[in-house]
Amino acid sequence: MKILLIGASGTIGQAVAKALSNEHQVIAANYSGGDVNVDLGNKTSIQAMLDNVGKVDAIVSTAGLANFAPLTELSDADYELALTNKLMGQVNLLRLGQSYLNDNGSVTFTSGILSREPMQGSAVIAMANGALESYVKAAALELDNVRINAVSPIFVKETMAMMGMDTEGGLSADDTAKAYVAAITGSMTGETLDAPEYV
Amino acid sequence: MKILLIGASGTIGQAVAKALSNEHQVIAANYSGGDVNVDLGNKTSIQAMLDNVGKVDAIVSTAGLANFAPLTELSDADYELALTNKLMGQVNLLRLGQSYLNDNGSVTFTSGILSREPMQGSAVIAMANGALESYVKAAALELDNVRINAVSPIFVKETMAMMGMDTEGGLSADDTAKAYVAAITGSMTGETLDAPEYV
Repeated sequence: MKILLIGASGTIGQAVAKALSNEHQVIAANYSGGDVNVDLGNKTSIQAMLDNVGKVDAIVSTAGLANFAPLTELSDADYELALTNKLMGQVNLLRLGQSYLNDNGSVTFTSGILSREPMQGSAVIAMANGALESYVKAAALELDNVRINAVSPIFVKETMAMMGMDTEGGLSADDTAKAYVAAITGSMTGETLDAPEYV
Repeated sequence: MKILLIGASGTIGQAVAKALSNEHQVIAANYSGGDVNVDLGNKTSIQAMLDNVGKVDAIVSTAGLANFAPLTELSDADYELALTNKLMGQVNLLRLGQSYLNDNGSVTFTSGILSREPMQGSAVIAMANGALESYVKAAALELDNVRINAVSPIFVKETMAMMGMDTEGGLSADDTAKAYVAAITGSMTGETLDAPEYV
């Protein structure tokens, strides 16, 4: 398969690229660097990336910006970033990307455990994740020949280590990547794949 | 209690006002008509309404615009309306309304069953509802002295009848109102109250 991976340089993205690259052609899309560039918060930039890449078999996003911040400190800009980047950036990958997919192609979003198991500081991230999971379930009812799913990672061990956190309870990036491989190579649609279930 | 009800002229809003008005003072807020006016999609308008009304014990929203439309026909404007009105309009009621609430006050949003049981044409509504339900759960972790919940109605029988649909499987507006009364008078926070469970 020819797979367009948005967020390929991230911690999860690198692991997904590694897991796929033996059997598939991975096109690495990043804000900067990689094979193609894209600003996920900008629909015109997404369109340009798709035009540049052409037809693919799968579009996978391990990208999407949203800020951790105390509820009282969240600004209009924080809400806006979560909605235009993490939420609509990924939604626009489906909206625009559909016509660049070969038959039985798929789009895979990244949501996250915070939609259902939030923690302090996660309000706008939880909001975007909840929106993505419900959107995927609804959109799948109206898509023919295109599968749409979300992968919901838990905390990634490598990220936790980088932040000086105890990595107990996290999942390694390589293990997290397995849910993406399942979403790309499987037959499910409209689902949110909880990463720990695919290890 | 003094209760600010946004969307008081709607089918659910009227039933909620009726259910509350024997024991409480209800201030009816609508886009037009009622005691005070508000454009839920406009943060300045929400602020003006709150300034006008002053301190209250509960803020309840039975409002929020988002369009039903086939996935292929959803425009940027349809996504924008769901996000700025149904989602951020209600979120802004919490953000701005918090400081207008008396101790142990509450904010109650309206989400809807389509977040978890979508139907064709419901993609942006499902998206907004899913966002609201996850946001409520996350925000509650960081709120002191303010409860935040969402009520999730199913189809309202009166609306179904008006649309020429079979009302089997729907819930009357009066029965739907019971979940709002439970959210306002109860002690829960961070929850989504499924309307059929409160009949």
